[in-house]
Amino acid sequence: MLPIPFASSFVNPAGSAIRELFPYLSQPGIISLAGGYPSPSLFDAEGLQEAAARALSGGGALQYGATEGMPALREALALLCRSRGMVCSPSDLIVTTGSQQAFDLLLRIFIEPGDTVCVETPAYPAAIQALRLANAKIMAAPVDGQGLDVDALAARLALLPMAQRPRLVYTVPTFSNPCGTLLPAARREALVRLALQYHFLIVEDDPYGELSFIDDRPPSLYAVGQRIAGDGNPVLYLSSLSKTVAPALRIGWLTAPPDVLRRCVVAKQTMDLCTSPLAQQIAAEYLGAGRYPAGVERARTEYKQRMQAMADGLHARLGKKIAFVQPQGGMFVWLRSTVPVNAKQLFEAAVQCGVLYVPGAAFYPEAPDLGTLRLSFAAPDVGQIQEGIERLARAFAQAS
Amino acid sequence: MLPIPFASSFVNPAGSAIRELFPYLSQPGIISLAGGYPSPSLFDAEGLQEAAARALSGGGALQYGATEGMPALREALALLCRSRGMVCSPSDLIVTTGSQQAFDLLLRIFIEPGDTVCVETPAYPAAIQALRLANAKIMAAPVDGQGLDVDALAARLALLPMAQRPRLVYTVPTFSNPCGTLLPAARREALVRLALQYHFLIVEDDPYGELSFIDDRPPSLYAVGQRIAGDGNPVLYLSSLSKTVAPALRIGWLTAPPDVLRRCVVAKQTMDLCTSPLAQQIAAEYLGAGRYPAGVERARTEYKQRMQAMADGLHARLGKKIAFVQPQGGMFVWLRSTVPVNAKQLFEAAVQCGVLYVPGAAFYPEAPDLGTLRLSFAAPDVGQIQEGIERLARAFAQAS
Repeated sequence: MLPIPFASSFVNPAGSAIRELFPYLSQPGIISLAGGYPSPSLFDAEGLQEAAARALSGGGALQYGATEGMPALREALALLCRSRGMVCSPSDLIVTTGSQQAFDLLLRIFIEPGDTVCVETPAYPAAIQALRLANAKIMAAPVDGQGLDVDALAARLALLPMAQRPRLVYTVPTFSNPCGTLLPAARREALVRLALQYHFLIVEDDPYGELSFIDDRPPSLYAVGQRIAGDGNPVLYLSSLSKTVAPALRIGWLTAPPDVLRRCVVAKQTMDLCTSPLAQQIAAEYLGAGRYPAGVERARTEYKQRMQAMADGLHARLGKKIAFVQPQGGMFVWLRSTVPVNAKQLFEAAVQCGVLYVPGAAFYPEAPDLGTLRLSFAAPDVGQIQEGIERLARAFAQAS
Repeated sequence: MLPIPFASSFVNPAGSAIRELFPYLSQPGIISLAGGYPSPSLFDAEGLQEAAARALSGGGALQYGATEGMPALREALALLCRSRGMVCSPSDLIVTTGSQQAFDLLLRIFIEPGDTVCVETPAYPAAIQALRLANAKIMAAPVDGQGLDVDALAARLALLPMAQRPRLVYTVPTFSNPCGTLLPAARREALVRLALQYHFLIVEDDPYGELSFIDDRPPSLYAVGQRIAGDGNPVLYLSSLSKTVAPALRIGWLTAPPDVLRRCVVAKQTMDLCTSPLAQQIAAEYLGAGRYPAGVERARTEYKQRMQAMADGLHARLGKKIAFVQPQGGMFVWLRSTVPVNAKQLFEAAVQCGVLYVPGAAFYPEAPDLGTLRLSFAAPDVGQIQEGIERLARAFAQAS
């Protein structure tokens, strides 16, 4: 029994719904379509071993580093941003401990308890959780097969009293988690103009953008914001090396205006002082060695095959029982059941049939659509995906 | 110009006073007695290179990991805790991104805006900064040559209305930053009993404990709390590998009761998901290789020599102009001027004489003693320390 009570938001802490699936993963023979993990088979272990050896040669990269991030890595990440169509110099970004920390930093410097933050829904669960712990008021914005429904958001904003308007709008516009959707160029421009009209900032979370199955994708919201508003760009850009190099580096970054970065640095000093300079140096050495583009290309090719196997299997085995939009990139397929199913029964049946997915409820801040499921095609291979969909079809047969 | 204002605590963010010294460090020939950095000459680069090679062999340690930390590292850290006289199993601790994150986690789960946190003063600046950003009410507790003045704290608590009593008391009892003092066993027991009497938790920050210049030091507050209160132990224990292995790993940990750890894990999920599994695996491999004790022994021997050189120099060159307690471990000497000096003039004179220190004001949440200075003997070698003290003496002569 503790002598003092916990803070209000921690009296009944909600853990991650996805973490609660972990126990099932150890079940022998189970096929997991649940995780949001990249495929270990795509990790460039050799390239990272070489990068680590170089980073540690001569005992470098062992001391504390600047909170903003190491100059060599900021250079390399600015180069990545430019390759994504953004105007970006190293001083326009800071390195963060995964992009998760970048989002947390933005909440710390912008959000007071009770402030409204708008989130495309269904949404990335850790973003919802971070908003809950920040005691933010969550405004759910609807999505469709093309991502955030900007017209619907505009209509809602027009009806909101000033005091209830969101300060931030969080979105994953490019191959979203969980829906896998791609926001069209016209909607990107409309969203930026909406931000300028209603004075909110857009948090563009872009971990998946380079995992594209198509030749050209629309420009990032950040680039659109630069084109339309210049220095008044209302877009704050988050990205990460977790999906394209390795999650274990915990290297993310935030591209934002100077005064936002300065305040984030002050907050980061109290959070972890600096992101591991060793991990930063390894990442800088890896990016500097020029192996990144080939690695991303391998991931694109592999994930596209796996996505196709999943889409084909779903059409063949579940047909009209489900609806989904075939993703043009990323790691996820979002299913909506078109027949009445009991979500709890379906999940239990799936576990019994030996396949795991994430029930859609995990992605809603409130009022979940219980007939939804998130499947990931990133980690399992084509054979496992085909067998996994077979098992999912059996589970549907049992639960519907 | 941003479309929305910053949160109140970030309208005028105070940066780290120590970071503001960085520009001076590039001044040619300057000797820095300012930094709190460990000596790079003590880093076991070879051991860490081998550990990194093992960690990355076969492409391990590249995926996401559990938020609590990797089992192998939790094992190794629990072993370290036991070697420090604590009863500790791997499930009694979580790995954090430096001990800074552990303190931040504790503020998140325990402190609401306006809650009182008691801090031994002078104190570690990043702790003060974290409390400011958490909008905590800071209660400064006095220290003397033996660390926290527990009797004085008891007298103050007795006069405080219930509502103003602190929820947490933060202390670095073993070779404190900035004072380098060692809290005696009797005071440790008295502080634990005070926590039980007034229902506060003690945050014991212990990054320096193993850097001891004496053969036996008193048990940690955590161990005292276990002995006195068993499962009702009011002590939360923070430590780190930054001062004994390498800061760049950013590996710290929190040893605490299960429900505290569970809530910290929920908060950590929203902060960085997990501490770099690559850095964790490297740390686990390093600790597993058995090189840690010899490394700590080297640091003890080297730092003791440097401390002695600094103490001798101070006595010889500044004599009665200053007062200080000769540290029995750690990295710092805390000076109080016994003659009237203008702190600003003294610092400017010191920079002109080519020596850098941290003005004491950086270590006070309020009402700083401007006649105080923190010197670190960790990074400079004996020769630099001797020359640095010569220069400091010249600066005193100019400013007093």
